[in-house]
Amino acid sequence: MSEEAVVALAAVTVLGVLQQAYFSLQVIYARRKYSVSPPATAGPPEFERIFRAQANCSEYFPIFIAVLWTSGVFFSQGLSSVCGLLYLYGRLQYFHGYSESAQRRLAPLYFSARVLWVLVGFSLLGVFFSFCRVYLKVDLLRGLGSALGLV
Amino acid sequence: MSEEAVVALAAVTVLGVLQQAYFSLQVIYARRKYSVSPPATAGPPEFERIFRAQANCSEYFPIFIAVLWTSGVFFSQGLSSVCGLLYLYGRLQYFHGYSESAQRRLAPLYFSARVLWVLVGFSLLGVFFSFCRVYLKVDLLRGLGSALGLV
Amino acid sequence: MSEEAVVALAAVTVLGVLQQAYFSLQVIYARRKYSVSPPATAGPPEFERIFRAQANCSEYFPIFIAVLWTSGVFFSQGLSSVCGLLYLYGRLQYFHGYSESAQRRLAPLYFSARVLWVLVGFSLLGVFFSFCRVYLKVDLLRGLGSALGLV
Repeated sequence: MSEEAVVALAAVTVLGVLQQAYFSLQVIYARRKYSVSPPATAGPPEFERIFRAQANCSEYFPIFIAVLWTSGVFFSQGLSSVCGLLYLYGRLQYFHGYSESAQRRLAPLYFSARVLWVLVGFSLLGVFFSFCRVYLKVDLLRGLGSALGLV
Repeated sequence: MSEEAVVALAAVTVLGVLQQAYFSLQVIYARRKYSVSPPATAGPPEFERIFRAQANCSEYFPIFIAVLWTSGVFFSQGLSSVCGLLYLYGRLQYFHGYSESAQRRLAPLYFSARVLWVLVGFSLLGVFFSFCRVYLKVDLLRGLGSALGLV
Repeated sequence: MSEEAVVALAAVTVLGVLQQAYFSLQVIYARRKYSVSPPATAGPPEFERIFRAQANCSEYFPIFIAVLWTSGVFFSQGLSSVCGLLYLYGRLQYFHGYSESAQRRLAPLYFSARVLWVLVGFSLLGVFFSFCRVYLKVDLLRGLGSALGLV
């Protein structure tokens, strides 16, 4: 794996980590504001929405990183990094929306879920093509290209 | 790292992501069925079991991915991928068992925990052999092979 | 990526997995001791502190692994591995402190957060230098070295 092939994925990963740090700080501020001391996680709805928003983003973080890298390494670093940025943008909107009301979390949640499905699709395609090359010695991408007169 | 050395690990990873997506959808359906609107996470025991089953699988997902890849890269891609499939099978049984009763989660939970320990063992062995090669310049696997007259 | 370049990162990763397994076992023992059967997560404060300590460490595990590897691959394996060991040490202190009282979790929590920020800083530096090399064809590290008369 060369440096050029993954540096943009690494950049999106670090950005994702910074976003998680930002969400964690918001929970700490909300704990102070609404006087909910650890280990308690129950409190006024305003606090619980912020707490759940952060928990949901944390839960999806490893899934996001797994498909970002699988898609980026086996399919396309450029397309995966763009999807990665869109996903992080969607998660930021989701977090701020959820902080305001449970209803406002929905649109950005659906958006980030759709971006995640695109990354899952890219990963499936990339791994499938790679399987064909490695185990069946068939290069479908190249075959497709030559069938279309591209190669 | 060549493509051949990791493509099966990538395939198991994507399968694991699809399973997490399936579990998340089950929680969404359970929220509707038992009328538990976000951000609430408390509700009837039927809902709480499904919620906890998903939370537990999510919590173990990054640990699973970490040992799957460490074991696959440093020990054996084939053995790690087989263990990975067994782990995902165990988690599916666990999720459906837990949905029915807390008792029924136990057998598949112990099974998936055992598979995870096997992956941890493979990772430890692989990293230990690699340490000996890199820092002590001793190739234990080769030494073992030639001692047994295999190489 | 050569074996030498990542074996220490892999060793810290496996150690981190073993620590997570240890924390999970402590929650199982606490569930028995304080009679809190799954799927319940509420119980006496002693149980809730242990439960939250494990949940918090689990939540940070994927973030830790992401910056450990980004920092180790793009900046320095040695420095990242040392930070990784310090982080795991801080998390152990955090878990035992939190088990005793919410107050005692604070000092090791701040320590492990600071170590994580150092890893984030290393990751940012490493990815930034790599970006300059790959996309701008400028090797800042080498330029810096020759400016200082080191190369």
